[in-house]
Amino acid sequence: MRSPQVVPDPALPSRVTVYEVGPRDGLQNEPTTVPAAVKVELVRRLLDAGLPVVEATSLVHPRWVPQLADAEEVLDALASSLGDRARDLPVLVPNQRGLERALELGLRHVAVFASATESFARRNLNRRLDEQYAMFEPVMTRARDAGMRVRAYVSMCFGDPWEGDVPVAQVVGAARRLVDLGASQVSLGDTIGVGTPGHVVALLDALNEAGLPDDVLALHAHDTYGQALANVLAALRHGVTTFDASAGGLGGCPYAESATGNLATEDLVWMLDGLGIETGVRLDRLVATSTWLAGVLGRPAPSRVVRALADG
Amino acid sequence: MRSPQVVPDPALPSRVTVYEVGPRDGLQNEPTTVPAAVKVELVRRLLDAGLPVVEATSLVHPRWVPQLADAEEVLDALASSLGDRARDLPVLVPNQRGLERALELGLRHVAVFASATESFARRNLNRRLDEQYAMFEPVMTRARDAGMRVRAYVSMCFGDPWEGDVPVAQVVGAARRLVDLGASQVSLGDTIGVGTPGHVVALLDALNEAGLPDDVLALHAHDTYGQALANVLAALRHGVTTFDASAGGLGGCPYAESATGNLATEDLVWMLDGLGIETGVRLDRLVATSTWLAGVLGRPAPSRVVRALADG
Repeated sequence: MRSPQVVPDPALPSRVTVYEVGPRDGLQNEPTTVPAAVKVELVRRLLDAGLPVVEATSLVHPRWVPQLADAEEVLDALASSLGDRARDLPVLVPNQRGLERALELGLRHVAVFASATESFARRNLNRRLDEQYAMFEPVMTRARDAGMRVRAYVSMCFGDPWEGDVPVAQVVGAARRLVDLGASQVSLGDTIGVGTPGHVVALLDALNEAGLPDDVLALHAHDTYGQALANVLAALRHGVTTFDASAGGLGGCPYAESATGNLATEDLVWMLDGLGIETGVRLDRLVATSTWLAGVLGRPAPSRVVRALADG
Repeated sequence: MRSPQVVPDPALPSRVTVYEVGPRDGLQNEPTTVPAAVKVELVRRLLDAGLPVVEATSLVHPRWVPQLADAEEVLDALASSLGDRARDLPVLVPNQRGLERALELGLRHVAVFASATESFARRNLNRRLDEQYAMFEPVMTRARDAGMRVRAYVSMCFGDPWEGDVPVAQVVGAARRLVDLGASQVSLGDTIGVGTPGHVVALLDALNEAGLPDDVLALHAHDTYGQALANVLAALRHGVTTFDASAGGLGGCPYAESATGNLATEDLVWMLDGLGIETGVRLDRLVATSTWLAGVLGRPAPSRVVRALADG
């Protein structure tokens, strides 16, 4: 299989953690709901491809995300198949009830999903912006007390479909609050994919100034406007070493109007491989996994790398 | 229409020249041949959108590129419609015969298309690598003597489908020869889109060392593996200020197996607009042009920005 010529850039980190969101964020945004057995196989294959962190599912009420209604079935099957390792797979918990289920399952890594903007807090959480922290506080405290790692997503960091521009200071405020509540990592989401590299640098500078160094941050770039990898490169040069991506570009179906445009893990790994940056990911296995899943979903993977390698 | 939040990065140049290749490189690689009147309208609309340089067509034998068989008809119509300005539109001339036609038409800017690799020189020009210079020499000398600007494309700079990796020194050798023959600008083509940002930096460093500064260079990035904008960002940071792109991603049809994957001008301009870098391009007019042309071609534009704005 074709691979990039390896030419490192000494200004960049030598190692990166790819945080795989396909089974949760990707499948949650696909129009087709896949059976639990496919989800289990997907997670298993992603781990087998060397991805160090795979967010497995979301313990959300089935009414809100019917695509992931079988979360507990999936987690049980993963525990049977992977043993203790399954307990380290991060799982999204939207609220107290979700956390209780995560605790019962013995999970060690959960994530909460916050908003940087008033509009999206209202639409997604049905709360005012400042009320979201009141909702997360008991969840995060309990998780931390139980020894869990807690990741916090912050969405709409680079733009909001209703509000337009989002001030950097507003994102810094949200990230700061979430770290104060116990988040060990904050994932900065460019939910609508409008961000550009100077914006990434300005936000990271402001977060560093507020006492949040690059090593507690992750970038969750969307490729809706084709900017994801350029933004990753800017963050990488700044010092960020964790990047979210979705296998095959799952959740960003190029034929759906509502394409969310998750950055494809393969496109990210191609760049990192070319830069000689270690990720532990085997691109050939990853491409095979996304090609298999595209067959299940009955449409080509949005990832450019997957399509180029399939053509070639 | 949605636009990116403007956040400049002081490490980057403040002004960039977008070199539009859609009417030539884009249409040449589309399966559908469009009428001359559409080509003329396309060039006119691209100029109207503020693109400072629009490569209009190729004076190649119709047998090789039937899509552009009407080159002289197009150039005549552009001269009627645009007057003297039409003479500054660059046109590809593959050989002496093409140059004679360009001279007869009073053109002031031509381009030649060279290869960095033996395999592609043989396939594209039916010549050995060193023989291509013998072919270009009289063309470039005559053009220069006539006061024309001469751009030289170098293809396969970052990888070759038959040879695999392409040594940086080999690309430097080709670029050096072409500048010695009179090229005022060398466009570094990532023809198969495999390049990554460290490779871009290493090549630019080597070219600078060989006496070719960034201001005689352009980057012609392809998005086949999703790397184009990250590579542009790396080159921009290095000091390159001319970037080739194709309106709407023309020539990189996402549904064709042979997608060449030209970087879409809109995706490039979105990033440059976000960085506050002046280009003179009006994104709204450009998107309207690509949307119109997609209608003529009967398929959506490959550009992510065009698709996102059409959806929104």
